[in-house]
Amino acid sequence: MTKAEIQLVRSLADKRARDEQGLFVAEGEKLIAEIRASGWRIRKIFALEGLFEGETVETLSRKELERVSLLKTPSKAVAIVEIPRHTLHIEQLKGQLALVLDEVQNPGNLGTIIRIADWFGLTDIVCSPDSADCFNPKVVQATMGAILRVRVHYTPLEPFLEAAAKAGIPRYGTFLEGENIYDSELSAEGLIIMGNEGRGISAAVEQRISHKLFIPPYPADCPTSESLNVAMATGIVCAEFRRRLLKQ
Amino acid sequence: MTKAEIQLVRSLADKRARDEQGLFVAEGEKLIAEIRASGWRIRKIFALEGLFEGETVETLSRKELERVSLLKTPSKAVAIVEIPRHTLHIEQLKGQLALVLDEVQNPGNLGTIIRIADWFGLTDIVCSPDSADCFNPKVVQATMGAILRVRVHYTPLEPFLEAAAKAGIPRYGTFLEGENIYDSELSAEGLIIMGNEGRGISAAVEQRISHKLFIPPYPADCPTSESLNVAMATGIVCAEFRRRLLKQ
Repeated sequence: MTKAEIQLVRSLADKRARDEQGLFVAEGEKLIAEIRASGWRIRKIFALEGLFEGETVETLSRKELERVSLLKTPSKAVAIVEIPRHTLHIEQLKGQLALVLDEVQNPGNLGTIIRIADWFGLTDIVCSPDSADCFNPKVVQATMGAILRVRVHYTPLEPFLEAAAKAGIPRYGTFLEGENIYDSELSAEGLIIMGNEGRGISAAVEQRISHKLFIPPYPADCPTSESLNVAMATGIVCAEFRRRLLKQ
Repeated sequence: MTKAEIQLVRSLADKRARDEQGLFVAEGEKLIAEIRASGWRIRKIFALEGLFEGETVETLSRKELERVSLLKTPSKAVAIVEIPRHTLHIEQLKGQLALVLDEVQNPGNLGTIIRIADWFGLTDIVCSPDSADCFNPKVVQATMGAILRVRVHYTPLEPFLEAAAKAGIPRYGTFLEGENIYDSELSAEGLIIMGNEGRGISAAVEQRISHKLFIPPYPADCPTSESLNVAMATGIVCAEFRRRLLKQ
């Protein structure tokens, strides 16, 4: 492993470098094996002896790997991977459920949300440009491979939601003053919009929402914790949308 | 703040010291204000000037607080709090829903689960002795105050579940080979058992489960991510139990 390669891997902890290079870092034997199988292009794999074979593979000692790993618990393999490019057309979202994230900032939350989207068969997540970056090493790790099956897009939400409204796609959001989700009609297509960890959904996005939902606490009239974590709320809302479809 | 006090706070990062002293550390203005209002006994509050008043309060500088804080992001206030004692009788759980955690080890997961229990009005969580400790500073923080409203018990699960079975309390668990939760009858009382992050529910606990449930992915016959995170699964299962009750 050259000095330049060490510097490259380390630099990819930062979004700016990832954007410029079009590369991200994936760690762990299982994840890297999944990436290989997925068809995403791997530039280089650094790994302990015997884990991987091929032209792009370089064997490193445990100590050397520790030096390049971007994670707290150093991994047995570190790969430099090309960021895949994909475009987003409103028409693709017709007939689908998709997630929209309005400045979800915590990498762990974004990773968990990508994993939920994968579980519930939502293949697109549209994020505001100030949301956490899905190729942040912590996010990649938290998705447990789901990043390979879910497309994450970054685009200003106001024009995107305007276009969705024009295309007749329902826009759902969760609000403390929303309608009980269990009493609400939920469609098989639409956008499920989730807000920032502290501030929730912004006013500009709220204006473009067509259905306000609420996850009732129990007892229904007596909320105790002030709110659910955004990833948790996403999971419960997605489960309910999918339950309705499974019941049909 | 004396040297002994600094040492005491720092020592309380460890479970052994917490058990011996019967104390834990809570951080943050909001959480400490909630603890005061709850009636839990606070030994001492260290805080920036003007945040708290009273005999137990000592003003510290930002720098001094940084030195004692057990968290990554140092707080404006740190309190030493007495661990409340509570006992668990099977009879208390009759007519209730309660959670049982079989070696949930990640403090963030335990904190999130306590917050979910609070949201859905589950007032008791029974943990195997090798589960994460609910007075671990990371857990306390992740509960966002829910720790004040949910009782967390530690007890060997096998005799506990035997006693629950004798008392006629249903024991639900989630398994990949379980029955679709949306097709299952769910009762208004019972234990919802969740397993370890990696290994799931242990064989000894599985034997004592009366109903095996499964959260279906979508499409139902095509799981993509291998599993949901344990906290996420807990949230989705609790939401479904409560939805049934709200619908009655």
